[in-house]
Amino acid sequence: MASATRTTPDTLPAWQTLQQHAQSLQRVHLKNLFGDDASRWTNFTRQVAGLTLDLSKQRWDDDTLEHLLALAHEAGVPAAIDALLSGKRVNVSENRPALHTALRLPADAVLNVEGTNVVGDVHESLAQMERLVQRLHAGQWRGATGKPIRHVVNLGVGGSDLGPLMVTHALADYRPKGIHPLEVHFASTMDGSQLADYLSRFNPETTIFVLSSKSFTTIDTLSNANTAKDWLLGRLSTHGDIPSATPLSAELIVRQHFIGVSACPEKMSEWGITADHQLMFWEWVGGRYSLWGTIGLPIALVVGMDNFRELLAGAHAMDTHFRDAPMEDNLPILLGLAGIWNVNFLDIRAHSILPYDGRLEYFAAYLEQLEMESNGKSVTRQGHPVSYSTCPVLWGQLGPNAQHAFYQLLHQGTQSVVCDFIAPLKRYDDVEDPDTRRHLKAQHRLALANCFAQSRVLMLGDDALEDDGPRPEHKRYRGNQPSTTVLLDKLTPATLGALIALYEHKVFVQAVIWDINPFDQWGVELGKQIATDTQAIIDGKGDISRMDASSRGLIEAFWAAEQE
Amino acid sequence: MASATRTTPDTLPAWQTLQQHAQSLQRVHLKNLFGDDASRWTNFTRQVAGLTLDLSKQRWDDDTLEHLLALAHEAGVPAAIDALLSGKRVNVSENRPALHTALRLPADAVLNVEGTNVVGDVHESLAQMERLVQRLHAGQWRGATGKPIRHVVNLGVGGSDLGPLMVTHALADYRPKGIHPLEVHFASTMDGSQLADYLSRFNPETTIFVLSSKSFTTIDTLSNANTAKDWLLGRLSTHGDIPSATPLSAELIVRQHFIGVSACPEKMSEWGITADHQLMFWEWVGGRYSLWGTIGLPIALVVGMDNFRELLAGAHAMDTHFRDAPMEDNLPILLGLAGIWNVNFLDIRAHSILPYDGRLEYFAAYLEQLEMESNGKSVTRQGHPVSYSTCPVLWGQLGPNAQHAFYQLLHQGTQSVVCDFIAPLKRYDDVEDPDTRRHLKAQHRLALANCFAQSRVLMLGDDALEDDGPRPEHKRYRGNQPSTTVLLDKLTPATLGALIALYEHKVFVQAVIWDINPFDQWGVELGKQIATDTQAIIDGKGDISRMDASSRGLIEAFWAAEQE
Repeated sequence: MASATRTTPDTLPAWQTLQQHAQSLQRVHLKNLFGDDASRWTNFTRQVAGLTLDLSKQRWDDDTLEHLLALAHEAGVPAAIDALLSGKRVNVSENRPALHTALRLPADAVLNVEGTNVVGDVHESLAQMERLVQRLHAGQWRGATGKPIRHVVNLGVGGSDLGPLMVTHALADYRPKGIHPLEVHFASTMDGSQLADYLSRFNPETTIFVLSSKSFTTIDTLSNANTAKDWLLGRLSTHGDIPSATPLSAELIVRQHFIGVSACPEKMSEWGITADHQLMFWEWVGGRYSLWGTIGLPIALVVGMDNFRELLAGAHAMDTHFRDAPMEDNLPILLGLAGIWNVNFLDIRAHSILPYDGRLEYFAAYLEQLEMESNGKSVTRQGHPVSYSTCPVLWGQLGPNAQHAFYQLLHQGTQSVVCDFIAPLKRYDDVEDPDTRRHLKAQHRLALANCFAQSRVLMLGDDALEDDGPRPEHKRYRGNQPSTTVLLDKLTPATLGALIALYEHKVFVQAVIWDINPFDQWGVELGKQIATDTQAIIDGKGDISRMDASSRGLIEAFWAAEQE
Repeated sequence: MASATRTTPDTLPAWQTLQQHAQSLQRVHLKNLFGDDASRWTNFTRQVAGLTLDLSKQRWDDDTLEHLLALAHEAGVPAAIDALLSGKRVNVSENRPALHTALRLPADAVLNVEGTNVVGDVHESLAQMERLVQRLHAGQWRGATGKPIRHVVNLGVGGSDLGPLMVTHALADYRPKGIHPLEVHFASTMDGSQLADYLSRFNPETTIFVLSSKSFTTIDTLSNANTAKDWLLGRLSTHGDIPSATPLSAELIVRQHFIGVSACPEKMSEWGITADHQLMFWEWVGGRYSLWGTIGLPIALVVGMDNFRELLAGAHAMDTHFRDAPMEDNLPILLGLAGIWNVNFLDIRAHSILPYDGRLEYFAAYLEQLEMESNGKSVTRQGHPVSYSTCPVLWGQLGPNAQHAFYQLLHQGTQSVVCDFIAPLKRYDDVEDPDTRRHLKAQHRLALANCFAQSRVLMLGDDALEDDGPRPEHKRYRGNQPSTTVLLDKLTPATLGALIALYEHKVFVQAVIWDINPFDQWGVELGKQIATDTQAIIDGKGDISRMDASSRGLIEAFWAAEQE
């Protein structure tokens, strides 16, 4: 990564060049960039690992990209990639490596980090995870009353929720056949909403919980876990409503109904999780980068270990590409540079993620965390406030649905937004019934036609119509909104792995250029602390008079409601 | 609404005053506004219809609000409200009223619109909807083979999906007891993802589809409907795999398995929906404002008609308040003005919606449509391009989950964002098991503590800590991020109705001030047209050579994938 003496990015020569260059390009409409360059598709499109990245609809030209590559060079991107992948302590504020890429190294790889080859540990943890998956898939895991498990509820939030939730949804077509039927569910929110619903519907005898928390102190997750534990004990113990031949001890119930996933084995043991049901990961895996290891247990339970290993292999293919490909052909670098251009030189502050495949329903929410928690920062690695913009606001929705929701603002609103369109080229070849397959393949073509049409209209505006006759102003389209299109040959475990890794590395490239640390999240710490204080005050154990008038008013409104 | 001779808002005297006022306030930190004013909570908080609106954490003072109220007055807000509620043709580009408020008028109200009292028609359509709901709740609706219906799949998108989806999720605790068991599902996306999943799991004999489309030409919905129809015909007809005593005609199958909801009865009949199973609504109800009528059928199926009528009553209470309350006490006006202040005078371009109640999971997505499709415009009602910002980008997530996802950017990112925190004061009083109730009520208090703490930290930054000793820069918090808090006494059909109506009217107030039409959506028309052209080209029926290089490249990539 950059040395301590490095200057801030906005003083680098290439940054200065880009500022001047942006002024001249500000007045050029995107459609004219196309008009002037017949080879634009070839020049701005790259393929790797089953993905095609089309950057031709960015509001840039060959010169822009040349200057941006110079910026990446001046900011030390190549050395930073090497530092990341080789396990240097790139997470400076927490003084540790960020080694999610190690989680997807093949078993025969060697990665010595500060004297230890981590690959062995990684594959041992995968093997342990595989044994749990196999027991559950064989129907051999029994609840406290001896019945095989039917429902697995993942209790986790943030990185311990969004990754597994997004991937299990995306790969639901890849469920292995012939296994014991198992349903995987997610309860994340601290208010107990999802959990309350599950507890009202599931049989405690056949339900287990996966307690996922890196620190094993996440109050959201532990609150849900405690509610779940008391529900199990209440229903299954001697006083419960479910008869048992022999009295069941609390210890037995907790042992048979909880799996723990954490970097803190002592805390798991303390909570009551038996050593056999503890899955480990490491301090050097950030929460939002953790789906690749044991936090991915729900994924493996839904798609099986073979497919889970395919997911890892796809991500590893992207890692290799990220390490080896020259900068001008390097997908994560190019995607990252497009973002830098939009944020810092075109002042675009919003970025929309628009998958044209319903299976990617949670992909936008996943990227919101990945990008905004990683790069929503304003202090450099050396501790100086930045004087330039960093992460934009990201949001999204399934593209076809968003067409009927917020595309109005993309086409005719007053602010610039950059869009990422994401779609698989092939789909529905495996549907058994020929009539249904024909219909669904037609629906897929319809979705692709819409995907391609929308980026075209965003670019061209009115000029998308050949006959652009006189029309009232409210029927006019400005165009000139930039976009990226990412095509997957097909949505498979491997291409999904590559897609996620593409965005992970894009985020890293941008962090290097912005000179910020993408692997910490100090911005969420103060809120946790103040929430604890606030709860004490709500519970009558603190001094409300020292709070601001609004906080006092809100708490007093709650107290008044409780008295009703 | 404003007269045709009205000047643009940025030339109104109050706008000019606000610009100057904003310059002086730009340098004042939000925490100092609190420090200077002990009565701030009282001054900036209002209650109505089971809602409390706390606007004290906006970056404004008494003078700001005074100037904003003057702006509302100069922009003609009171007259515009009257025009809206009395059925004037406020949707100027489509030359019709926008009468969603008529859908929630009580049966004894009278509203003459261009010579006709619409209230009778509205209540007749509710009565017809009630008859269908009762048949399904009694298990008296039989599929073509004579079995009672178990699954109802709503086929709709945009306004015909998001409203019912959001409300059924929010009010799932309000299912009536003792009815025939019925599950309601939603399939919206044109690529068939959700539908394909349902078709692989449900029994066609006990599944019906609700085909919801105002125009009955929405291709997303009709594609799903055609796939569903062929699935039913294939499985239930004489050639299907489900045996039937007598051969079933296609007509019988379609009649017994489809309900239509549309403003075009002829098109429903043409598609094959029998007159008895057609529910109507009117051209004067916009799609994104339509959950209050027959588009709300899935809501009524989940919560029953009594609760559905409570939802209407809550919205009507807000309508009455909107009409009658003085501007300075009028919740939708105040909420709208806060937005105007943030967008046009503080240049805040992003707005986050953060409910602290898992039942409101889809509320942010609902508001994204309501606000961005209504006000993502840049042409005045008179057809002139605007020279000021209109709708910001809205996005959101359940607040507790977003704390682990994108709050990092809210607390330490480089751009200003305004947040709406939404929470119910009371919850879980009806949980039967006392232990579970105690746990869940504690989880609710935890969620509230987090909600209140986050808006406090966003406001105060480091000063939220009493002992704010020296800390490294990456552990510092700037604060000064404005927010609104909306408290519901309890989440009920009535308070939810009032909450939705609050935001509907907020959007209207902003549209009046921006002088744009919130009821059309011309920005989505061109995309539909170009998608049709693009599909023809994909299918080999058009001239690809006239397209831009990127569109050509993308289509050729699809063709190549098809050949594999």
